[in-house]
Amino acid sequence: MQTLLNQLIELLGARQVLTGADVSARPISWFDPAPMRAGAIVRPGSTEEVAAVVKLCCAAGISIVPLGGMTGFVEGAVPSAEQIGLSLERLNQIEAINVDNRTVIVQAGVPLQALQAFAESNDLHYPVDLGARGSCTLGGMAATNAGGNEVLRYGMSREQILGLEVVLATGEIVSNLRPLLKNNTGYDLKQLFIGSEGTLGIITRLSLRLRAQHSSYSTALVAVPDFQSLTALLRNLDAQLGGRLSAFEVMWQEHLRFVIDQEQTHKAPLSLDYPYYVLIQAANYHDLEKDIFLSALETLLEQELIIDAVIASSMAQQQALWAIRDDIECLTTGLAPYIGYDVSLPIDAMEAYVDNLTEAIRAHWPEAKVIVFGHLGDGNLHLFIHIGPDLSDRQRSTINELVYQPLASCQGSVSAEHGIGFQKKAYLQYSRTPLEIDLMRQLKKTFDPDNLFNPGAIFD
Amino acid sequence: MQTLLNQLIELLGARQVLTGADVSARPISWFDPAPMRAGAIVRPGSTEEVAAVVKLCCAAGISIVPLGGMTGFVEGAVPSAEQIGLSLERLNQIEAINVDNRTVIVQAGVPLQALQAFAESNDLHYPVDLGARGSCTLGGMAATNAGGNEVLRYGMSREQILGLEVVLATGEIVSNLRPLLKNNTGYDLKQLFIGSEGTLGIITRLSLRLRAQHSSYSTALVAVPDFQSLTALLRNLDAQLGGRLSAFEVMWQEHLRFVIDQEQTHKAPLSLDYPYYVLIQAANYHDLEKDIFLSALETLLEQELIIDAVIASSMAQQQALWAIRDDIECLTTGLAPYIGYDVSLPIDAMEAYVDNLTEAIRAHWPEAKVIVFGHLGDGNLHLFIHIGPDLSDRQRSTINELVYQPLASCQGSVSAEHGIGFQKKAYLQYSRTPLEIDLMRQLKKTFDPDNLFNPGAIFD
Repeated sequence: MQTLLNQLIELLGARQVLTGADVSARPISWFDPAPMRAGAIVRPGSTEEVAAVVKLCCAAGISIVPLGGMTGFVEGAVPSAEQIGLSLERLNQIEAINVDNRTVIVQAGVPLQALQAFAESNDLHYPVDLGARGSCTLGGMAATNAGGNEVLRYGMSREQILGLEVVLATGEIVSNLRPLLKNNTGYDLKQLFIGSEGTLGIITRLSLRLRAQHSSYSTALVAVPDFQSLTALLRNLDAQLGGRLSAFEVMWQEHLRFVIDQEQTHKAPLSLDYPYYVLIQAANYHDLEKDIFLSALETLLEQELIIDAVIASSMAQQQALWAIRDDIECLTTGLAPYIGYDVSLPIDAMEAYVDNLTEAIRAHWPEAKVIVFGHLGDGNLHLFIHIGPDLSDRQRSTINELVYQPLASCQGSVSAEHGIGFQKKAYLQYSRTPLEIDLMRQLKKTFDPDNLFNPGAIFD
Repeated sequence: MQTLLNQLIELLGARQVLTGADVSARPISWFDPAPMRAGAIVRPGSTEEVAAVVKLCCAAGISIVPLGGMTGFVEGAVPSAEQIGLSLERLNQIEAINVDNRTVIVQAGVPLQALQAFAESNDLHYPVDLGARGSCTLGGMAATNAGGNEVLRYGMSREQILGLEVVLATGEIVSNLRPLLKNNTGYDLKQLFIGSEGTLGIITRLSLRLRAQHSSYSTALVAVPDFQSLTALLRNLDAQLGGRLSAFEVMWQEHLRFVIDQEQTHKAPLSLDYPYYVLIQAANYHDLEKDIFLSALETLLEQELIIDAVIASSMAQQQALWAIRDDIECLTTGLAPYIGYDVSLPIDAMEAYVDNLTEAIRAHWPEAKVIVFGHLGDGNLHLFIHIGPDLSDRQRSTINELVYQPLASCQGSVSAEHGIGFQKKAYLQYSRTPLEIDLMRQLKKTFDPDNLFNPGAIFD
């Protein structure tokens, strides 16, 4: 390692090779304040320097964990003391925008929020949004195929990526940053790297698609009498709003009650006695669309798919409604110790899945809390489970099995948007067949035969 | 070959193994009436039979060309006498729809139009549409990542595919048909097969996403004074229509004039003296959206981005406008012999590209016709080039170079939506780097080490 560190210092300069206290001064992630470990954290300033670092590490037989904004949930970027953490933080430039073509070239370390603001200043919109926007980086979001708040309308990060530049395990730079919506010229190599969690290559630059900017949002919180009405409401609203529906965030009663109880700054926007609540948002581009939104809600009230509703009449009210949905901190503090999940399954299987899971958890721990909410329009549920003041590893395993195992039989996924990392790899088998996992291994071997990049993430 | 044929007959029955005149009775493709050649055309009736055919062919060392609806443009599915054509035509069932989840499972041989009609009968919409809808199959469309008329709004076939079942060169069946919008569980293997033109595996079933059905379309043909206005018009309209813009089809003056001259059934909808025409279409879900469409056009007329317009006031008028844009037959007959192209490039590079190309062609052949039209909203142009009554192979090569070579310097693509096949592989280098092509070869070797599937397509 020391020889490698000397080579890295010679390559990048001592300031860009952090060791010792400079490494441990950083937390493992947003969610884990424990000190980071790593033989070193290196901070190359260009794609060429990334490639040179890769070549040196490869020659030394020392593996690399690429580091983005460190906001992932699945222990996907946790170097050990025997590894090099390669941070993309200095590759933080928005390089070029083409306003006519509505595309942009960014370096991997650009934070999401910086791109959002830049797009907005050009009257355009980057349509992936998530809570970690200030820290998460576009390279990390590509490597994890990040989802978030507007997937229903625009898709995941994958759907926004037109091209990538990637440093391979050989140190070669494979680049196709063409700003084209359509490009059927052989295998679409970028797709392989998207969602590969840093195991196949290091993403250094991206060509991204931008969209038209809306002029306003219409936002409402509605109460729904039963699950069947929820699915009918989703179909109906999406049809009436012509694809402008950008959020359909469902909160089970217990979730809303918990957040309102827990955090005095939130006020109950509706009675807390309804079984389901949906935060609905549609983007408007024309004033008449506000009328369409209101008339859609009226129709749905008449049809009794909605039994109560509050419509935000100001930006402040919109933010107050979203603040309830987005208050993850009140869950992480109020439910500690807890386990959080991010699963997906077909909408028609959700009600039974949640009911059965809650029952199974309470059969073990009658006082357990099972808090459920999520991007229902995307088939994605987030679960927070708290069984009491203590949580052993063994209990954790039991709960994991209770959550993940039933997904196999209802065609669900153990990870809708967060990825696998190290945390969920024992459960990958519930969503992917042995043959699929074997093909993943073959791809890993093809692109990274020496297991240089993030070894052990996703699968062994 | 004969031993293999006997084995195939034993496996599938003689009726499902076509040889001799039964093979040559079929044309090579929609565009080439010459008789098909193949050692045999086999028609397995299930995924398991496809897998068994693959194993027999692999053991015999005889390669397989998968056959879909035979509507491809790039010689991507042309078996030789030494190969087996594997037709998916008997895998033609729509297996299951989940209306709440808005997903459907189909077999690979289902024609696009059958799915479109089925979705409509369930008040849903499958958003890929193209001229060959009656013949092209969903398996073939996945293998070629087909685009078409609504890419601007909904993306290519890739964006509609939630899961695939694929028979590998080993005869193994890799399947993940989960109907999930979000599924970040390791490498997204299906992406590899999409657009691989039958070279990595044989797609047998698909899980597809469906969308809300619109209630009507607003359609207009507008005239635009110059190219800069075209790009401003696209941005402006897309912003005003909130993403409901589903077609922005540009016709250069010479194209519209040619079609109107050539085919008496078309009437000129506007003066033929304007430089550019755009066929604009937006899907409506609510009656107020028709007003938004009209007011958007009015504003754009006031701003003189549009200088003339005809708005369809009936379904018949809509069809008449589309008939002009979709009349490919009048081009293929009226311009014979011709070469057709399907390129993409950034919108801001298009005007110069077309001008320079036209000039370069006319420098060789002063009387040449260069007809240009396409999905401008997707950066995709179709070109038809006619230089006179004769067209030698040498002239063809010269024209190919004139069309393709300049794309390299403006970040364009030699194939926006049609693929590479055998026809364009000599020009792949203009859109992909040697390293990219080398990675494609490595993937081919990983998945199909014996070169069993469609050998020689895309690259050698």
